[in-house]
Amino acid sequence: MNQTKELNIVQFNSGEKNIKEDLIVKETPFTLLINGQEIVTLLCSPNKLEYLAVGFLLSEGLIESDTMIKRVSLGKDEHYANVELDRDFQVPQDFFQKRLISSGCGRGSSFYNPQDVIDCEPVNSGFQIGYKQVIDLMKEFQEKSALFKKTGGVHSAALCNLNEIEIFTEDIGRHNAIDKILGECLMKKISTENKVISTSGRISSEILIKVTKRKIPIIISRAAPTDLAVELAEKMRVTLIGFVRGKRMNIYSQPFRVI
Amino acid sequence: MNQTKELNIVQFNSGEKNIKEDLIVKETPFTLLINGQEIVTLLCSPNKLEYLAVGFLLSEGLIESDTMIKRVSLGKDEHYANVELDRDFQVPQDFFQKRLISSGCGRGSSFYNPQDVIDCEPVNSGFQIGYKQVIDLMKEFQEKSALFKKTGGVHSAALCNLNEIEIFTEDIGRHNAIDKILGECLMKKISTENKVISTSGRISSEILIKVTKRKIPIIISRAAPTDLAVELAEKMRVTLIGFVRGKRMNIYSQPFRVI
Repeated sequence: MNQTKELNIVQFNSGEKNIKEDLIVKETPFTLLINGQEIVTLLCSPNKLEYLAVGFLLSEGLIESDTMIKRVSLGKDEHYANVELDRDFQVPQDFFQKRLISSGCGRGSSFYNPQDVIDCEPVNSGFQIGYKQVIDLMKEFQEKSALFKKTGGVHSAALCNLNEIEIFTEDIGRHNAIDKILGECLMKKISTENKVISTSGRISSEILIKVTKRKIPIIISRAAPTDLAVELAEKMRVTLIGFVRGKRMNIYSQPFRVI
Repeated sequence: MNQTKELNIVQFNSGEKNIKEDLIVKETPFTLLINGQEIVTLLCSPNKLEYLAVGFLLSEGLIESDTMIKRVSLGKDEHYANVELDRDFQVPQDFFQKRLISSGCGRGSSFYNPQDVIDCEPVNSGFQIGYKQVIDLMKEFQEKSALFKKTGGVHSAALCNLNEIEIFTEDIGRHNAIDKILGECLMKKISTENKVISTSGRISSEILIKVTKRKIPIIISRAAPTDLAVELAEKMRVTLIGFVRGKRMNIYSQPFRVI
């Protein structure tokens, strides 16, 4: 599906008024089902939707990395996807009732406690990366963000090895972009261990949790982290690098991985 | 509560490595209750939390603009707020079960249909603004975004009249920033009609819906809109102006309000 749409706008420039054709980014409602049972509706960019479906369910703990997925089928106009599992599925009662999802680029469970949310082991990888490699990966990442340049409306994310980008994706939501990467890794059996994840967006606690759960040791961004993300990163032994711009970067946690 | 936190980071700059003190933005889990009943947990910036509570409940349709609010009390460490109403309250069954909230800066109901979501009248205001006034408001708005400049981590929103900013707020989430404005308007009985709302963030469908429900005729942003937001704005007769930068702006819908 096309990810941008042309439309006529009125542009003012230094007082001069013109009608102009412009490109804007698409936003689509996309409903996920497991075995035909409705789970959630996301607002997202209409690409890599199968990966978004699987990545979201994985990040939310509704499926595990060894869950047998029989088929992911996209519905009419790609407005929904049904993820068919090789077994019965019951939505955990607390998914709807307790572990509520928040607004505003954020989501959390009730009386949210980072330690509760991270129900996984710290990332104990000895994986390291050179300072120069971080700079080069961010440069490649920036160059790939073509849709962003065209429309100014999307976030990007990428899974990288030490030398290059392996998977790249874009979405209007920074959480969705990360979930698309994680879903693609699961479906294509691409390992996330000893890899670097790159994001165009702010690193908040939820982004950090997604990355930790997949045992990714390093996350890099052009943007800022929040204090909660840094606190979690330190605790979960993830190396969080922000403000990677030009030849500069800030390492907020576990700097031993950057050499 | 302080909105930023100091911490020591490792900074690389052109290959040189230094330990440096840095400011990062806070991210706090904040749980909302109505009459003691838990509703949702948001991840947000710890300021204007009473307004966020009321604004969120208003945007979600859990309270109406004429609902009698007896008291909004903040709990220990400001990690929750209880909104006491002057009447009994039952969470609508479909709030938990059907109208699910999405991840990644987005939220929607099942098989989301913009027409279903907008259960309000179009904004039929004849309110107009001068091209130059939009430029000036955005300039004032940019100057006020001090926290963003310091930490690179937050969004801003403002309610403006034709000449100046009336209410200004910041939050790590662009939805939260708008809800804080709307909550403050409700609690202080400030009219939102014939006003302009300004946001630092992308204008997606949900932002547009919040603004429409409060009958705000004009929304302006330095950033881009999505196609769904533009479609809704046209239908709901809201003037959507994006990319307000320097002396330039793009008007995506209802341009008759800019003179």
